[in-house]
Amino acid sequence: MDKQAGRRLSIRLDFGANIRVGPGKIALLEAIVAEGSISGAGRKLKMSYKRAWDLTEELNKSFGALLVAKSPGGSRGGGAHLTEDGKALVKHYRAIEQAAHDASETSLAAVGNLIRQTKADPTT
Amino acid sequence: MDKQAGRRLSIRLDFGANIRVGPGKIALLEAIVAEGSISGAGRKLKMSYKRAWDLTEELNKSFGALLVAKSPGGSRGGGAHLTEDGKALVKHYRAIEQAAHDASETSLAAVGNLIRQTKADPTT
Repeated sequence: MDKQAGRRLSIRLDFGANIRVGPGKIALLEAIVAEGSISGAGRKLKMSYKRAWDLTEELNKSFGALLVAKSPGGSRGGGAHLTEDGKALVKHYRAIEQAAHDASETSLAAVGNLIRQTKADPTT
Repeated sequence: MDKQAGRRLSIRLDFGANIRVGPGKIALLEAIVAEGSISGAGRKLKMSYKRAWDLTEELNKSFGALLVAKSPGGSRGGGAHLTEDGKALVKHYRAIEQAAHDASETSLAAVGNLIRQTKADPTT
């Protein structure tokens, strides 16, 4: 197995104690764009509708800004889309992730080289 | 309150499915350097001795390399120190974190500017 295979750098942004944005929420926002609804996004990510809805509410509430806008359509039936702020959040997060990758390529490879054993955990 | 106050970028490194290194494990390694033992590091981080020990074992095992070396000294009594590999992991992790910060300063500020409300959650 290639030692460097599967290496990945994840970014989490914390703004004070209440605002946390990591790969899960960003994936949800991107899935809302792709699917056009919170329920569709949840299905795509194998996440319960409640979980997808709660994360969306948490994002809107914590930013004090509408990031995901819902269209009317009855119980679970309405569509959803990202506002300009929501699109900006995704764009900046992905830019941060890319910049972090690019800037740390050498150090990331160095950490990979510390790994002596990459066999799957025998307990799994 | 300053909108930009408290903003922080956290890095997690994943190598395959079994090796994950984030701010918690790095803080533990640094605390072992500062305190000279796993039990002292646990106390410093307000972490149970078991938790500190388990994280240390997980690190050593997942890397297939000795990152934290323990000195004999009876139950809970022995000291611990980082090996060269352990020191290298901390050094590279902090370098990645710094590079990520430096490279993403503008985007991080842009995300901060999306926040309309930074008051503490009224439910807390």
